[in-house]
Amino acid sequence: MTSGVVDAQAIDLRAVQRQVDAALEDFLAEKTRAAADRGHPPEVVQTVRDFLAAGGKRIRALLCVVGWHAAGGDGDATSAVRVAASLELFVAFALIHDDIMDDSASRRGRPAVHRVMRARLGEDERAERLGAGGALLVGNLALMWAQELLHTARLEPGRQRLVHGLFDAMLEEVMYGQYLDVMGTGRGADDVEAALRIIHYKTATATIERPLQLGAAVAGAGEATMDVFTRLGLPLGEAFQLRDDLLDVFGSPGGACAPGLSDLREGKRTVLLALGLQRGDEVQRERLHHLVGRPDLGEREAADVRTILQDTGAREHTERMIAARYNQVLQVLDGAGFPQAADHALRGLAVTATRYTS
Amino acid sequence: MTSGVVDAQAIDLRAVQRQVDAALEDFLAEKTRAAADRGHPPEVVQTVRDFLAAGGKRIRALLCVVGWHAAGGDGDATSAVRVAASLELFVAFALIHDDIMDDSASRRGRPAVHRVMRARLGEDERAERLGAGGALLVGNLALMWAQELLHTARLEPGRQRLVHGLFDAMLEEVMYGQYLDVMGTGRGADDVEAALRIIHYKTATATIERPLQLGAAVAGAGEATMDVFTRLGLPLGEAFQLRDDLLDVFGSPGGACAPGLSDLREGKRTVLLALGLQRGDEVQRERLHHLVGRPDLGEREAADVRTILQDTGAREHTERMIAARYNQVLQVLDGAGFPQAADHALRGLAVTATRYTS
Repeated sequence: MTSGVVDAQAIDLRAVQRQVDAALEDFLAEKTRAAADRGHPPEVVQTVRDFLAAGGKRIRALLCVVGWHAAGGDGDATSAVRVAASLELFVAFALIHDDIMDDSASRRGRPAVHRVMRARLGEDERAERLGAGGALLVGNLALMWAQELLHTARLEPGRQRLVHGLFDAMLEEVMYGQYLDVMGTGRGADDVEAALRIIHYKTATATIERPLQLGAAVAGAGEATMDVFTRLGLPLGEAFQLRDDLLDVFGSPGGACAPGLSDLREGKRTVLLALGLQRGDEVQRERLHHLVGRPDLGEREAADVRTILQDTGAREHTERMIAARYNQVLQVLDGAGFPQAADHALRGLAVTATRYTS
Repeated sequence: MTSGVVDAQAIDLRAVQRQVDAALEDFLAEKTRAAADRGHPPEVVQTVRDFLAAGGKRIRALLCVVGWHAAGGDGDATSAVRVAASLELFVAFALIHDDIMDDSASRRGRPAVHRVMRARLGEDERAERLGAGGALLVGNLALMWAQELLHTARLEPGRQRLVHGLFDAMLEEVMYGQYLDVMGTGRGADDVEAALRIIHYKTATATIERPLQLGAAVAGAGEATMDVFTRLGLPLGEAFQLRDDLLDVFGSPGGACAPGLSDLREGKRTVLLALGLQRGDEVQRERLHHLVGRPDLGEREAADVRTILQDTGAREHTERMIAARYNQVLQVLDGAGFPQAADHALRGLAVTATRYTS
């Protein structure tokens, strides 16, 4: 993935992704059969399958399996792959609920689930409320199925408690992070620390640290390995999110990822925006406050915002924050002493997560 | 509970309820401490505690512990009580989400959680959407904590898979039942079968059958016991729900439970309403269609509806349906051969569930 050379020692991340997708597909195919047997509406499972098929980088699943390798996991990866698949259903749950809360129109290039449900209800005057309700339930089922995948992962009895504990901790952390995000209207949009705190719970822990630790727990890892993953999680998670924020606003240099309007229209309280507000003069600050968060923001206004984020140095400062965190990741890995294949894969994923262009 | 005589052999259901409440209180007190340690907002746990403290009959928890006794459970009931407590957190989750979907104003005599969250946001113009989002997340946490209680119930390893399987099946069934309820706008309100199908998933399985089976699974019960609980679940669950529907519209004869407007305003598709529509003449049917489901329905219109449900015989027919199901329950119990204390408690709970007046 990070070089063209095939290495017999390397972890084939594409193969891992195929295994995870196959585990998800098998599980949901069984759910489709069960729904037919019991007279449940088929569109619920289908909605989850469509959601997963529409894309997603499966980064948590890959980290989970790499974490398993890093902790010495070898041979039959079935349990690790199943836990990895569980993480992807958890992500589906979180995003489906996120889109309801934000009333987002689309996700992964398709209409958001609550919009699909709303459309299904046709002319019903209660379609908006009921559609959100239908999507809420589909999201809940995705979470429940994530737990079911975990419950049926055939974990070694002695490791089960640790895996469940990590999973439960992850879920709780993400919910608290989202709660802070949703209900935290009191703080200013120029609060870099607050923006980083939300990243901490929403991304660093749930996207990086916990997936790595879950894989490691399946392999029976001890505290030293868990600790390395904690130290890896924060810088890598922050770098990942900061890159995501930059890509959303500016796109990627090569144009593989087009600049978008969604974060700006939503008024997402990113570090990038907080830096722009902190560093801007009065006119620039007022302009940002005026434009960011307008649902009808157009291309011309977005270009204005980009110029301000560029001129104030907010963009460059964010790039520097990413680079600093990437270097921290390398330092942690240098001292970790992981098996070569896992070390190699982690370095590759660190590049993918912080510099990806699509 | 069903007689004034104290019986050394009897299961003290009040003591069971106290144990369940103590397990919930201990678990949530720990969550409060953890939130303080980690800088999470304290109001999330507090909201769940308030919700549980506001009432609820804890019928699922009681059934779970009685199911444990029925399957020969004896001695240390800690695991059974913990699974029972988990069920009550699951109920909190389901009701908090229900109230969001229906935009209900109140629950258990207090403002519904999304209304509490909305009020917390004050003048924010997005308070309605964000308040629903905050409540959604609190509900999700209640579900996640239900799972955590289960994961830490110290179940015997050989029984864990069965307990998890039953719990996962229950969650899925309830979600499908609610999905049918929310998205099933196609069917007519006069469809008794459809109303019974919703009861099947929302109440019979989740309120009666699965809680009994979960307790039995903790005690290591075999298939015969599970089968008895399946045969008990449907008639008892239906009777329970039909009684609930009657109480909501007509109150209780002694006046301990006042007749209300909530089901009528919400247009809840109950068997009672379906029977009224089926049995009414054209004028009565039109009147029901006109009135039921109006959010501004007043006392005078509600009295009109009650008269129609009375005159068409819908009320009496519902009472007969309850009586028939109660008799079925007794027949199942007659053939079950449960230990005397458990049998006695189940008969008591059957009375409570189908004839309760408060």
